[in-house]
Amino acid sequence: MEVRDATEQDWPQIWSLMQPVLAVGDTYAFPPDASEQDARVWWTGKPFGRVFVATLDGVVVGTAELHPNGLGPGVHVANAGFMVDPRRRGAGIGRALGEHVLAEARRDGYSAMQFNAVVATNRGAIALWESLGFAIIATIPEAFRHPTEGLVGLHLMHRTL
Amino acid sequence: MEVRDATEQDWPQIWSLMQPVLAVGDTYAFPPDASEQDARVWWTGKPFGRVFVATLDGVVVGTAELHPNGLGPGVHVANAGFMVDPRRRGAGIGRALGEHVLAEARRDGYSAMQFNAVVATNRGAIALWESLGFAIIATIPEAFRHPTEGLVGLHLMHRTL
Repeated sequence: MEVRDATEQDWPQIWSLMQPVLAVGDTYAFPPDASEQDARVWWTGKPFGRVFVATLDGVVVGTAELHPNGLGPGVHVANAGFMVDPRRRGAGIGRALGEHVLAEARRDGYSAMQFNAVVATNRGAIALWESLGFAIIATIPEAFRHPTEGLVGLHLMHRTL
Repeated sequence: MEVRDATEQDWPQIWSLMQPVLAVGDTYAFPPDASEQDARVWWTGKPFGRVFVATLDGVVVGTAELHPNGLGPGVHVANAGFMVDPRRRGAGIGRALGEHVLAEARRDGYSAMQFNAVVATNRGAIALWESLGFAIIATIPEAFRHPTEGLVGLHLMHRTL
């Protein structure tokens, strides 16, 4: 597996794994039926953002994005998002992306990283982030309408870098 | 004092109070030297956002914006921002805006409101939000570079509606 900065040419493959992840609607506070253009702006258009892909044999199997959680006086804290091809779950792709993004965030000079909305039912993601040094510092109650579980909490997760 | 929905015509007056608030750099994770256009997109351009003004004798003395904190499965939780003309502090403008925005958020069907980044040194704002029913549910450590206090925390504040 290779993890590298994404290029314009990667977008169609990023979208092909992102669209089904969004459609399920159980991990991101973003419209399950988002248009390709809206999703592209959301994932790749954040101020000072970077986008990464994980590839296997040249095929994009996961993506991540890294950006400052705030600007100006808040620009030293990073935020990031991650998606793995649903057909490739459990293969260590999320962990490889997570380790790469943490290293790049450190190189870029961020002093901490926070995730604002980790769905409380997303146990795989929570376990991964805890194993990578993140802690849940708050749970926003009933902040996410899960497609099958109803209203569930969103965790704020944080770690220093 | 009147609090009402903002119009296009209000923008120059909104900017004239926003620019000095941003320039001090002690309340918002946004560039102190932001351009008028960037500030306008930030304050008025959020998906499904609404903008309000407080006026005294027809002059804009404060502004607020209300928008969903997330989209799709997170669209039922509101987020909001508030600014008062620095020359008019202590006159109840923030409270009037806060009460108005809470009422409008309820009318719009939101079930809760959260603030993601209340600067821990901003004691006036914290006291106001606590008096309006918000609780601090987390403090993100050293997430804000205060112009005179150094690195300070950012509070996540929340209330149901």
